[in-house]
Amino acid sequence: MRYINVIESVFPEPPCDLVRRRAGPAFLTDRIVTGVFDVKFRRSERLVDMTHYLLEKPRILVPLSFFADRYQSAKSSISEDLTIIKETFEKRGIGTLQTVPGAAGGVKFISRTDRAEAKEAISELCTLMENPDRLLPGGYLYMTDLIGSPQVVSKVGKLLATAFADREIDTIMTVATKGIPIAMATAAYLNVPVVIVRNDSKVTEGPTVSINYVSGSQKRIQTMVLSKRSLREGANVLIVDDFMKAGGTINGMINLLKEFDASVSGIGVLVESEDTKERLVDDYVSLVKLRDVDVRSQQIKVVEGNYFSKVSLFGGD
Amino acid sequence: MRYINVIESVFPEPPCDLVRRRAGPAFLTDRIVTGVFDVKFRRSERLVDMTHYLLEKPRILVPLSFFADRYQSAKSSISEDLTIIKETFEKRGIGTLQTVPGAAGGVKFISRTDRAEAKEAISELCTLMENPDRLLPGGYLYMTDLIGSPQVVSKVGKLLATAFADREIDTIMTVATKGIPIAMATAAYLNVPVVIVRNDSKVTEGPTVSINYVSGSQKRIQTMVLSKRSLREGANVLIVDDFMKAGGTINGMINLLKEFDASVSGIGVLVESEDTKERLVDDYVSLVKLRDVDVRSQQIKVVEGNYFSKVSLFGGD
Repeated sequence: MRYINVIESVFPEPPCDLVRRRAGPAFLTDRIVTGVFDVKFRRSERLVDMTHYLLEKPRILVPLSFFADRYQSAKSSISEDLTIIKETFEKRGIGTLQTVPGAAGGVKFISRTDRAEAKEAISELCTLMENPDRLLPGGYLYMTDLIGSPQVVSKVGKLLATAFADREIDTIMTVATKGIPIAMATAAYLNVPVVIVRNDSKVTEGPTVSINYVSGSQKRIQTMVLSKRSLREGANVLIVDDFMKAGGTINGMINLLKEFDASVSGIGVLVESEDTKERLVDDYVSLVKLRDVDVRSQQIKVVEGNYFSKVSLFGGD
Repeated sequence: MRYINVIESVFPEPPCDLVRRRAGPAFLTDRIVTGVFDVKFRRSERLVDMTHYLLEKPRILVPLSFFADRYQSAKSSISEDLTIIKETFEKRGIGTLQTVPGAAGGVKFISRTDRAEAKEAISELCTLMENPDRLLPGGYLYMTDLIGSPQVVSKVGKLLATAFADREIDTIMTVATKGIPIAMATAAYLNVPVVIVRNDSKVTEGPTVSINYVSGSQKRIQTMVLSKRSLREGANVLIVDDFMKAGGTINGMINLLKEFDASVSGIGVLVESEDTKERLVDDYVSLVKLRDVDVRSQQIKVVEGNYFSKVSLFGGD
């Protein structure tokens, strides 16, 4: 736990940023007079830099005074900038800015997909997954390329972050290996750490907690292990994985969380498979649903998951 | 391979974007007259949206006409916008815009850390890693929290992407489990796919290529496996991992690449350990170097890696 606090305090670093820039890049020297900028930043420059700054630090409260110092500008100008950014973010399905009033207040970027973008992304995922080249012996699907594509994974992460935007989430939990890219992408938008459950314990993990679980589809008893120090007691945890059939693995993660007195804030998967007799998990969000795999005719049928029935989105129907 | 092409053609989607937006969110309807925007976008809105668009799609060539259509604006105005964005990106250590002239031309965002930002990020990594709470029995270090922090991983990814910005890279290769978050973050900045080497073969990977290698520090023979279809022959591959001691694992990946007739474009690691008699790998970039772990006095000494001697950065010394 301690580490997480250290990281948060060391990394987002608003206050020292301006100082660093003053002492910074050589191509700035023509603008520097006795170590201080002699020009204010124009609105256009502020908008570009603020947009980048906010996008990189979702859900972090940035005081207006930080921006005012950073650009040597009046708070009223910064407020106007933020209004423009907020309007554009909302119009373009990027997200929104939340304003927290008062002395300890500021502004926070919340990433949110709108309905049109979500529809498009999920329909593209269906198309990608229906490619018959994905068929492997036994009716398995090759999805490794999707999981390794930064563009795909980033869209998936944004969709899942949007789905759980209003939940209390301290940590995202996933299971090695294929869940990791999706969990990291979701974590980037929600700005919370990821913990990775493994099948074996490693010496570099320190003391671990392990449980046995029954893999739903194969009815095999397996072990899952989580480093003890990676999750604090009582944490609110979002479970993310790439694929869910009967839900045995996810059910295992839920049981593992009980060992940490942690609670489940939500469950999100990229693909759910319809081909299952009993589902061990009820309340989850899926982006797409694998309806049918016909090995003979080489056909894969993939449809929308329950995303649109579970998630309230901006942008009407 | 085919998948990768499909993904690239389906996902970045410049041409259909305007169409989607026109049919899109309800809060846009007040601006829509017979299906077409009746107002031009103001520069301030364009700057915010273009900044987001370019940041999300590094290294993708975006034609000026795409932006001109998107905002119903003259190409000359778009050019002016791009000049403002480029200047701000360079001034702030965000990166740069490359302009490709001619009919097939356009603009490309290249992410680049400048020297000041790199110095700060690497020195913060050293501080984080020297925390004596990380010490595990046997002198191992707990780093799982760093690998799971989206803010840390994103900075590491940007540093590695900057280091190899000028190399020809088709794919990033890493090994499960802890290399994955760093590889994905680097891939997001370089906009190339990630392939993941594993210790065992899975039914969902299809046919695989496997090799044996000697883990350098423990002199144990191990196996590494890569799905055959995940990497095309002759690809240029950047190898990324979290930790390198003697380099046995990375050497294994180099040998595995030979089986694919692929070539090594570069090797980047988060941490290298100084405690090694012979290094199996010469030409690599490391962000930090683990100099010494003293279990008795509970002291960890972490210093800058070879990053600044290997990487040419903007922003002087």
